[in-house]
This record gives sequence, C-alpha cells and structure tokens, in this order.
Amino acid sequence: MSKHRASLSTLLRHVHVSGPLSRAALAERMDVNRSTILALTSELVAAGLVREENPAAPAGAGRPSLVVRPETERVFVLAFDVAVDRLVAARVGLGGTVLDRRETTRPRTGVDLDAVVSNLAALGRELHDAAPPGTVCAGIGASYCGMIRPGDGMVRYGPELGWVDQAFGTELAAALGVGLPVAVGNEAHLGAHAEFVRGAGIGSPDLIYLHGDVGVGGGILVGGTLLGGESGYGCEVGHMLVNPHGGRECLCGSRGCLEAETGEYALLEAVGRGDEFGREAVRSVVRAAAAGDPAAAAAVASIGDWLGIGVANLINLFNPGVVVFGGTLRELYAAAAPQVGARIAQHSMRVSRERARLLPSGLGDDATLIGAAEKGFAALLSDPLGGLLVDRTF
Amino acid sequence: MSKHRASLSTLLRHVHVSGPLSRAALAERMDVNRSTILALTSELVAAGLVREENPAAPAGAGRPSLVVRPETERVFVLAFDVAVDRLVAARVGLGGTVLDRRETTRPRTGVDLDAVVSNLAALGRELHDAAPPGTVCAGIGASYCGMIRPGDGMVRYGPELGWVDQAFGTELAAALGVGLPVAVGNEAHLGAHAEFVRGAGIGSPDLIYLHGDVGVGGGILVGGTLLGGESGYGCEVGHMLVNPHGGRECLCGSRGCLEAETGEYALLEAVGRGDEFGREAVRSVVRAAAAGDPAAAAAVASIGDWLGIGVANLINLFNPGVVVFGGTLRELYAAAAPQVGARIAQHSMRVSRERARLLPSGLGDDATLIGAAEKGFAALLSDPLGGLLVDRTF
Repeated sequence: MSKHRASLSTLLRHVHVSGPLSRAALAERMDVNRSTILALTSELVAAGLVREENPAAPAGAGRPSLVVRPETERVFVLAFDVAVDRLVAARVGLGGTVLDRRETTRPRTGVDLDAVVSNLAALGRELHDAAPPGTVCAGIGASYCGMIRPGDGMVRYGPELGWVDQAFGTELAAALGVGLPVAVGNEAHLGAHAEFVRGAGIGSPDLIYLHGDVGVGGGILVGGTLLGGESGYGCEVGHMLVNPHGGRECLCGSRGCLEAETGEYALLEAVGRGDEFGREAVRSVVRAAAAGDPAAAAAVASIGDWLGIGVANLINLFNPGVVVFGGTLRELYAAAAPQVGARIAQHSMRVSRERARLLPSGLGDDATLIGAAEKGFAALLSDPLGGLLVDRTF
Repeated sequence: MSKHRASLSTLLRHVHVSGPLSRAALAERMDVNRSTILALTSELVAAGLVREENPAAPAGAGRPSLVVRPETERVFVLAFDVAVDRLVAARVGLGGTVLDRRETTRPRTGVDLDAVVSNLAALGRELHDAAPPGTVCAGIGASYCGMIRPGDGMVRYGPELGWVDQAFGTELAAALGVGLPVAVGNEAHLGAHAEFVRGAGIGSPDLIYLHGDVGVGGGILVGGTLLGGESGYGCEVGHMLVNPHGGRECLCGSRGCLEAETGEYALLEAVGRGDEFGREAVRSVVRAAAAGDPAAAAAVASIGDWLGIGVANLINLFNPGVVVFGGTLRELYAAAAPQVGARIAQHSMRVSRERARLLPSGLGDDATLIGAAEKGFAALLSDPLGGLLVDRTF
C-alpha cells in the first residue's frame, strides 16, 4: 500500500476510534504537519467519510483548529451476534455508535445453519431497509460462538450449536443479498479486539478476554494482534484441561475442560436449575449468591476456583497486562473474585502476574457485537478510498 | 533505521542463517537487482563481515555469480549456557559454526551468582584469549534456566538454582571484562529461536519449544516472534497447573505444575533414583525403559501422560505449526509418544491440532547454546555497520 493510502487509513482510524479530533490533535498524533492533515482530510470529506466542523468553543488565541468528525450517521456496517441464547443484529455507524438494533431470543434446540441464517438475514434486511436515504453500508461483520475459518467465515466447529464445517459466512452473505461479504469471527476473538479498542483494555496490547456464554471463549492479543496461530484456531481457552480426575463432561467430547467446570451448565446444575439456560439464568444465580443463598454461593465459589486455575495458567503463559471478564463471566468474576485471586496467587509466577490487572468487560453484553462491527469496518479502515463506497449509497 | 541500513541487515542475516549464497540468489531473495547486491556486499566486505568467492563449479553459461560467504572464522560471539547440570561456553562464528567450546559440570548445590559467574567468566576468557589474531568478538549471549528481565539480563526468578533478582547479565559482563554487554535470555526462549532459525522449526513461525532440564521450560513463537507479554515473562509452560488434586510439589512452591509432574525429579524418584540428577541420569532411565525395565517404562509412560495434557492445552491455546521437544524431553517424548499422542487426541480440538507437527529438537543439547549465540549476534545483525566492530579487532 502506498504511504498516502496508509496515512488516509491512519487518520480515519483515529477518528473512528477516538471520535472527533481537531486537525491539530491529528497532526500531533500522526506526527505530520497540518497541511498534510488538511490534504488527507479533504479527500476523506470528498468521499463522505468525515466532515469538518468548527469546535464548540474556541481554545485560546488564534484561529481555532477545525474538528474532524466521522460521518457516523452516513456510513455504517451491519453487525451480527450469534450467541447461545440470543441473536442480535445492529446497524453501527463509523465511530462505533449503535444506530439501530434488533434482537431475538434463540431457541435452545433446532438451531441449524438455515434457521440461524434466515433469522439473522431477516433482522439484517429490516435494519438495512430502515437506513435513511443517502447512507451507505460499508461492510458486514458477524460474531459466532465457535471456531471460524479465516477468509470465508466457515464455522469449523461450534459445539454449543452442534455445528461442524457449516458455511455460515457465505450463506449469511447470500441470504442478506446486500452484495457484500460477511466477515465472521469467533465471539471471544472479536470481544478481545472490541475491549482493546473501546473497552476495558484500551492501552493494553497484551490482553486476554474471557467470554462466558454456555462455554468459555477466549480472545488473546499479543502485542495488539490477535493470536492466530498456524491457521487461526488458537485461543481455545475453554478446552484447556483443568480437571483431569473425574472432571465434568464437556460438549467437545472430553472431560474436565475449563468450560465444563466453569460454564453455564456447571453453575445451573450445581443449584438444581439444569433445565434453565441463558445469561439471565446465570445472573439470577449470581444474585442469589449475593443475597445469601448458600447453594448458589457454593456454586459460584466452586466456579471461581476453577476459573482461577484457568486464569493462573494463562498468566503464566501470556504475562498479560490485562485480563478482561466478559459475557456472563463479568458477573461471575465479580462474585468469585476472592477464589480467582487465591488461585492466581497460588499457581502463577509472581513475576508473570505482577503487572496483570483483572477487569470486568467495559462493553458488557455488547462486546461481541461491537467486535463484529469492528470486523465489518476493517476493510474500509485499511483502505478508505478503495472504491468500496462509490456505488453503494442508497 | 534507514532503508540502506535495513538492506545491509537483511543481506547479512541471509548469509548468517543460510550460509554462502550467490549474488543472484541474494538478489532474488531480497527482490532487488544485482547492482544493489553488489553495492551492499562491497560495504560488508569492507567491514570484514563477508567475503566474495568464485563458486565451486560454474553453473551453466555466462559469467558465474560470485558467492557471498560470512566471515565465520573472523567474526564471532561468546555464548554461554547455564543449565542445571553443566556450564557451557563457546566461541561461535558468524554463520552459526561453533569454533571452540569449553564445558564443565555444575555442582548440584552451592551455585550462587558469584560461583556461576566466576566459572563462566573463566571459561569465556579462555576462549577469548585463544581466539586467533585478527578476529573480533561481536557480542556476547547467555542462556539461563530462569525468568530473565529484558534489557539488563537480571534473573528475576530461577527456582532450579534458587535465584531471585540476581544481576546475572551485568555481573557476567563485568567479570568477563571484554567491554561488551551480555545479552541474556531464558533457555527455552533461546532454544525456540534457535530451532526456528537452524533446527526442527525452520519455516514454522508458530512454534512451541519445550525444554526439559530439571524443570520444563517453554519458548513460544507467535508469527515468528517470541511471545513476550507485558514484560517478557510469558511462556512459563512448566508452571501450568495440570494436576490440581494431590499433584507433586514444585520448586516454585505450588503443586501439580507441568514440570513437577514431568521434570527430572518426577522421573528419577519414580524409579527410586532420587539421589541422582542431570541429563545422563534421565537418559539412562529412558534407555532402561526401552530395554524392558518395567519400573522405568511405567515412569516414562506416566510422564508422557502428563506431558500430553500439557501439549494438548498448548495446542488449544496456540494452534502451533510445530511443537519441538528439546533437552531431556527430546528422548522422553520419543519414548512416550503414544501417551502424548493419546492425550492430544483426547484433549485438544481437532481443528487446532490438524496441522501441528510434533518433532524432536534438531539441535539437540546445543539448542540453548546456539540460541545464546544468536542472541549475541542480534545487535550486529540488526545494524551491521553500527560501529561495533571498528575498534574491537585484536
């Protein structure tokens, strides 16, 4: 890519991530002079990606520096989130604002590819059709609770929904019929990126995001980049074996995996509510524990114990700056912090943990959805004038 | 760094790693024309880092392309390896050839900083003084079996030798008195790099190196770069908790760590030889198992079981292209491959393991020493004409 295109990309990324910035601030961040910023901004204004405005109040003497603002209302992506207990679709504007959203509960069974795709496509088309005239869809991103093949969004393995080698990305793109591909990512990978860009992990490029749904997903950033591995199938934190002696059965076919010991089924069965499912059921157990219910408190503490072992192992391996607890682990971690902390102190190297902060998700239940939106914006952000938008305004 | 300096670095790195290469081959690898190669080579020849020679046999018609060869005999580093049962020092030439070497067994106890440093410095000075006239020491690298602070080579934690916050790098540099700093790295980190550059992991940038000594060290490359984490203290594979119920005591103070279950003490105690130590003792147990000794075979199989759990967890987390077994794990893995393989099949995701190869170290017991040499060469390779060599020829 030419230096000029790289600079356009950098500028657009700055206002997408940080919101409106003065030309002066951009010049400082990008270490270029103001005339360069002026030239770059003019091109992005012409493309309809940013606009320039006078600042709210002039700062000090001299001519105030114009503020560059992303065209949030005009340029959007469609973002989808396939979680275990719900399907979400949203229209998210450049800059990361959720402009419109649809949500539906997902049935516990009967969730094959066709059903999920047709549900999502209906929500997506509703959002797309409701978009005001003159707006433009710049990309589509989707979050899925399983292992995703980079490139085409094939679900290689999704034990929670029982999917193996299902062409989710291409099928959803076809069903939407918007003429854009769907960039699919694993929910926890996307959550990790979202927390790094806009959540609890800002400024921490060595970040571990743990996502509690039915299972436990992991997204691990190493130096700001998602740990991909040989083919994109790393970060499978949930299937780390933590209990080799008589551990609970896992959906993956093994026993004693971290997610078998800490996931939704472990918690709900421990309190005799194995017939329920979903994030609200988990949260009601956490609330019961806080209210003094002994069975609930014991279940939460036991899960904290296993979770702490998992986190200790991750600290030893990754020496993270931050570990972010998302999905239902957000509340579970808050309730079981003493157990988690004790296990970390016992099983991780002092030197590896001394700078690690443990934090709840900053984006809450929307971390994966926001991550999907970021995935949808990726092509535009890396090449803002790549022609993507020219013929797409409607 | 200027583009020119970067090109000098790239060229020198090619001949350092691959050995003699024709100008034509360099031009192709670096995607530049031959006159650029000529200019770069001339500068490196003038600096005494490479020389040009006629090829052994002319290849085809036309004038043969001159071969660029690293000045292996002239430019060397000192490399040190502090292992649990031995101290090694070597003079290693540009291109990676061990030119001269000294080795001494290390006593099991009484191994404080002063003793180790004075032993190593004596070996190093011997090597340095024995170097022929006209040769030049370009750097010093050292491998240590513990957690190393990047920058100054402080040993933050070395449970095998009982070291906490010992200024190993600066003390060794002072004791050597060569006027160069000592670049220190963790043994398994350095082994990982060495196996990637010159050993079993060539071409596999997503590599896990497991090093068996008294403990189990890990070096993990993600996209060709060592996993550093927030402060350089990741990759602590040996202290991954694998046996939470009544696991063996570990030197780190915890129980059930991977190295407690698979390290030297576990093996030797299982066969009633807890009073011995060192790599030869481990290897004699492996040989006894192969020869049909039932106690030895059971001990090896049990260790293979735990090792397999550890490797399965690493495969889930890192989706590696290759897992390399080094140090005493080289022989232990070879003897316990069925157990290791069974655990991997049981506890790792098929999608994560489908492209992972399990291989014995290609460099054997010298992996960590070669890694130390590479660490010693790093400054020269990244800036070949940085002035390092000018005043150092002796």
